Parts: sequence; structure tokens; C-alpha cells
Amino acid sequence: MSISPDRIRADIEAIARCTATPGAGADRPTFSPQWRQAVDYVVGQARAAGCKVRTDAAGNWHVRPEALPWDAPAWLSGSHLDSVPHGGDFDGVAGVVIPLEILRATAAVTVPLELIIFAEEEGTTFGLGMLGSRAWTGDLSAKELARVRNAAGESYLEAGAAHGVRESLLLEDRLDPRRYLGLIEAHIEQGPGMWNAGVGVAVVGAIAGRRQYRCNITGVANHAGSTSMRDRRDALVGAATCILQFEGLANGIAGAAVITVGRIHARPNAINVIPAEAEFTIDFRAPLNDVLAEGDEKIRHLIRQTCERRGLQHSIDMSESAPAVGMDPRLCARLNRAAERLGVAAPQAVSGALHDAAVIAPHLPTAMLFIASRDGISHNPREFSRIEDITLAARIVQAAIAEDAR
Amino acid sequence: MSISPDRIRADIEAIARCTATPGAGADRPTFSPQWRQAVDYVVGQARAAGCKVRTDAAGNWHVRPEALPWDAPAWLSGSHLDSVPHGGDFDGVAGVVIPLEILRATAAVTVPLELIIFAEEEGTTFGLGMLGSRAWTGDLSAKELARVRNAAGESYLEAGAAHGVRESLLLEDRLDPRRYLGLIEAHIEQGPGMWNAGVGVAVVGAIAGRRQYRCNITGVANHAGSTSMRDRRDALVGAATCILQFEGLANGIAGAAVITVGRIHARPNAINVIPAEAEFTIDFRAPLNDVLAEGDEKIRHLIRQTCERRGLQHSIDMSESAPAVGMDPRLCARLNRAAERLGVAAPQAVSGALHDAAVIAPHLPTAMLFIASRDGISHNPREFSRIEDITLAARIVQAAIAEDAR
Repeated sequence: MSISPDRIRADIEAIARCTATPGAGADRPTFSPQWRQAVDYVVGQARAAGCKVRTDAAGNWHVRPEALPWDAPAWLSGSHLDSVPHGGDFDGVAGVVIPLEILRATAAVTVPLELIIFAEEEGTTFGLGMLGSRAWTGDLSAKELARVRNAAGESYLEAGAAHGVRESLLLEDRLDPRRYLGLIEAHIEQGPGMWNAGVGVAVVGAIAGRRQYRCNITGVANHAGSTSMRDRRDALVGAATCILQFEGLANGIAGAAVITVGRIHARPNAINVIPAEAEFTIDFRAPLNDVLAEGDEKIRHLIRQTCERRGLQHSIDMSESAPAVGMDPRLCARLNRAAERLGVAAPQAVSGALHDAAVIAPHLPTAMLFIASRDGISHNPREFSRIEDITLAARIVQAAIAEDAR
Repeated sequence: MSISPDRIRADIEAIARCTATPGAGADRPTFSPQWRQAVDYVVGQARAAGCKVRTDAAGNWHVRPEALPWDAPAWLSGSHLDSVPHGGDFDGVAGVVIPLEILRATAAVTVPLELIIFAEEEGTTFGLGMLGSRAWTGDLSAKELARVRNAAGESYLEAGAAHGVRESLLLEDRLDPRRYLGLIEAHIEQGPGMWNAGVGVAVVGAIAGRRQYRCNITGVANHAGSTSMRDRRDALVGAATCILQFEGLANGIAGAAVITVGRIHARPNAINVIPAEAEFTIDFRAPLNDVLAEGDEKIRHLIRQTCERRGLQHSIDMSESAPAVGMDPRLCARLNRAAERLGVAAPQAVSGALHDAAVIAPHLPTAMLFIASRDGISHNPREFSRIEDITLAARIVQAAIAEDAR
């Protein structure tokens, strides 16, 4: 049986119906009834195709063909089913449906493939992203899992108890690299790059690193009427100068570097007072750690220079620093060969967003396939990816796994 | 008896002690015990010097020499005693103390001078500035005075009843131009221009007009990581571009034009989301109405052009439009002649801030004298003006009044 676009479409539609907000997008908080309904759908399909299922102590779900022992080396493929509030029907889902369809399509054969459903990727249920994968690799301790809470006030350990989470088994049930050949995560791009370029599927070369900063610029509050332009030390004009220059800086640094100022506050924030203070955040991402370091220096230099020239004070606090994660070049090459054999091009892409793959990459050879997002819209009910692109990605994953058998 | 710097200093110190926040600046909300204490001090000094006192139905206080009938044409001079919270000791006070000292210094002679203490100039007690003068000229109706409320929830009419406010007499007790030769208001500059230029006293040629706007720029919210710089429609970068260009625009328009963006909000205001919306205020002032009209057009053009280039939407609402108010050229010339006779230069200045003089100007020949503010600091306990500059301003006002008698 070969990969079926119709079954993939049916899966996506079935999972889309598992939502707390019908008609207003996907709403599947981790461990909610809707989330469990989606998990049960996937598990039910897999069981019907001759698979076995287990949960690990961190709350992730694992599916293998019956005949494939849990400790036999296999390819790991999957993504997440939890969603942001009023999210889309493809984010995470596409990456779960692909290995499901491969398992179904090869039912009779024992394909060396394990489907994984990572728990709490989005971070909107417990306030921390990629929780399931980080707990599975041991990056997060039981203490941290006990601290994070959902809207009902339950910790991850408490809320997850009914879904396989077991504090006492966390250590022994950790990711065992000997059981895996590598991870292939398929995911929608969540940006417009591929869609605009007419690319359906791409091989992700790296997951961008991220540095986040909180910058505070201080000038002098003064009367908006009686202070001449020459006599001002306007903190907001200083901030505006930086924000505008960040755009040029990101364009100048290197391909795929992005800088975003998402949050800003002025003080006293009064219509007729020159701002004494402007505080803003900076989110800077780049696919190479060298570029992150270079950009860090340029961002700081730009702010310092702007403030010096304008007689303003400033402070910069780095609130987060996540390194860029390169994907495994051999596994990427394997995906490219698989695409070639299928007669399609899968150009290289960079993931600006973080994914479970970034958590797994230090432990297993890891690669990602991106699927084009229409107009780049994501975390939104209007999120859309073509079934034909998802189907193509499934064929590439299937062919890449099958390479060993050729 | 001549103008005495020592008495002026003593007045300022005595009024400074009338504050709800000793040690933390002037705090004299209109009709508060501290405000009344300051009024009573001035009135007491004037009475002791042989003056009579009355309140008008709008809550302003009037002081004339006993022998000068209330309906005899006289020069009006004064300012306000109410303060912003944690304000300075000179704002308003200097302009009240000057006619007080002239009345004291000429006690034996019936100088044609009426001291006025305008009620609620700042607008921080009842949320509307220049209330006393606007009620006196009839610019504000009894209905509006009944609507505005102080922190205790009392209307201007209610709270002012104990201080002379009489709704029933508002109409008949209005400003009668036949009783006045003109208004001379002395006030501190509240900006650093004169202080930095080494100018102690200046003649104000115009009170700048003010246009205020609320501008909303709309782009597209998107993932800060997965949206390339090229694919963004970032509302905050659009706003920053405008803010920075306003600075150049104000510098380019004409002398003394100022543009301030005091308030800004981004939405969704999240560190990792490209802002979909940026809303900011614009406060634009210029001393000539032609310049206001020209600047209005340029501000709108600049925003429109910036948004068009960046694929952003925008809306602009003008929330206030107060015309520039030219001071009476003959009265200004009279003040300049008085300064010349005293052997000092009083260069021309523009008032960026609004004052009661702007309210009175359409009804009486009106002029203002500015007194230098140290470093331009105002609405702040660190506000400071030199007693010698205030004394000089008093001598100029005295000499200008005396010109008729020469």
C-alpha cells in the first residue's frame, strides 16, 4: 500500500474536530479532553494497522509496529498534537500524521519506525515550551515539572498522571539513544518563505538560535511644549532610532537573521510629556552561533552609539540565550537523496521557530522537513498547508527510512 | 518704596510652605486647604498694604488698591497658585508675587493695577486646564463646570462654593473688558532655552498653538522567528520610522516648532510576535497658525508615505486643535520700552506651554513676561528661578504700567 493523500486529509480533518472551540480553530491544551481525543484517534489508527503503543514517564506517546521490539534500533518520527488557543489544524499535526500514514501504508512490513507524539510543545498550557521532549531527555527535572502549572493550577506531574506521566520513573524511562537511528520531524514552516518561493517541502539545515534582551533607555522627562527640539533627551526617539536600525542590521548580518522588537513601553506615557524612559524587548535569531555572537555585539554597539549621540543612558539585559542547533548533515543528505529518488527538489531551509527536534538533536542524529504554510499564517485558524505537500513529505520520510533496505 | 527682592523671596518661601507634601515639592490642588492657605497669604499681604479683595463667580481672586474702584480701567496682572502633584515653587507663584510686590511697593499711590489669582490653571485637580480663566471669560459653561470632578468626586461648582464660586452669578460676573487696560502675566519659562542662553527675562511674542493626534498603524502579527525580514509588515517599525522622522520634520519646519510622541502602545506586545498594531500620540506645537497648518500636512504625508512604502494601514485622529495666540504687539512693545528704560534687554520668546494669558488674549490686550527656569526643569521639586530675574520682571511690569503716568 502506498502513501495516501486521502488518508492524510482524513486524519487532519479528524484531529481538527478535536477542539474545545469548534469553528474557531484548534484548541487542544496538553492533557485536555480534546488533546486526549486527538491522541486516541492517532493511537486507534495505528493499533488498527498493527501497531503497539506505550507512554513514557514524561508524557510522550510512542507507537511501533507490533513485531518491532521497543529496544530495536528504529527511526523516530513525530511532532505534537497540543495547540495554542485558536490555533491552526496543521501545526504539529502534519508531523504526527506523516509517520502514522507510513506505518499504515507499510502495515504488513515491519518498518523500523517509531511514531512519537511529544507532549506540551507549544508552552501555552504549562507556560514552558517543548516540555515533553525536555523531560524525556532529562533537560527538565521532576522538580521543574512539579513547579509549572496549567490554568486549573495543576502541575505537569499532577495533570499528566492520567496520561502516563510518572515522576518515579522519569530517570529510568529517559530517551535511550541506543534504541534510535535518528529523529525526523516534519513540521509546517509557519513563515511565508517557502510558499512565496513556490517550494512545497524543504530540508531544514538548522534551527535558529535565539537571544532575547530587555533594553531600557533613559532620557529626561520634560514639557512637550516648552522644550525645544535641541534641548531634548527623548528616550522614545532613542528607542525608535534603535528599532529602525535593527531592521537594517538584520538585513545586513547574514541570510535568515531576524530581529524583532515586539514589546515597548514609554514612561510616563503621557501625550504632552517627553518620554523619560523607553523599555523594549529584542528577539534576535540566527541559524549559526557565530552569527548570533556577531549580531549580539552589533546590537549592543548600535544601542550604545545611539544613546551616546543623544545623551541618553541605557541598560541591556539578556533574558534568554538558546544556541543555534545544526541538523545532522548526514541525515539531511539522506532526506535530499530520498527527495531526488522521488524526482523532486527539497531545497534547504532554516527554522526560525524552535521545535522538539532542537531538544532531541544533542542526543540523536536529527533532521527536519518543512512543509509550506500558505502566506506564512500560523497560530491562527487560517493556517493552511497543501495535502499534496504533506503527502510528498511523507513519501520523502518513507523513502529515507527505506534507504537502509535498498 | 521700590521693588524688594527680599520681600519677593519671602513670598515665594511662604507660599512654598503651603503644600500637602512638605519636602517633596509643591502640592496645592485647587480649593485644597494648602491652596487656600497660599491664597490667604497673598490676600493678607495685599490687605496689609491697603488693598481690597473680591472673588468672581468663577473662583478667581481679585485684588485692587482700596482707592481704585472695581470698575475703573486698570492693568490686570497675575497667574495661578495651584500646582501639579510634587510640583515646583515658582510655576504660577512668580506671576502672582510680582503684582503683589508692585502693590506693596506703591502702597501710598493708587497704582492702576489689579492682581488676579486664576483658579485651576494646571488641570490636574479637575482634569481640565485654565478652568478659572475659561469660566471667567465664558469659554466654559456652568454645565461644564458641573461635569468636571476632583479626586473626591466633587464638581468644580461644589468644591468651589466655599471659595467664591457661584453658579447663579457666572454670567453677570464675567470678565468685563471695559474695566481693564490689558493683562500682563509673568511666568517661568518651563524650558531651558533662556537659561542656556543666559537670558533672565524675555517678552513672549506668541503662545504656541497645539495640535494633538492619535495615530494607529496596522500591519500583520507574525512569528518573530519564522518570518524573514523581507516578509514582515511590522507596525512598530513603521511607527519608529515616523517617530524618528518627526524629529527631522520639527527641526525643518520653522523656529520653535516642536513634535513629541509621548505615548505608545504595541499589540499584541509580546516578545516573540511581530507587532500587528502600534498606536501613538503626536503633540505638535508652533507659534504661528500657518506653520501649524503646514506641519499638519507634513505629519500626515510622512505617516501616509511611510505606511504605503511598508504595506501598512493607518488612521490619524486629531484629538485637539488649539490655535496659536499672538500676544498684543503694542503691549509687548510697551514691555520692551520699560526694559530699555531699566537698561536691560528683554529678548523675544515663544511660549510652548499654554497659559491663562492665552484664554484672556481674545478679550484684552495681553502680553507675557518669561523668567528663566534653571535647566528648564519644571513640574518638579527641583524647579528653580533666580530671585533677581523675578525682581527684574517685577520692575519691568511696574515700569510698563507707569508709562501712562510719564
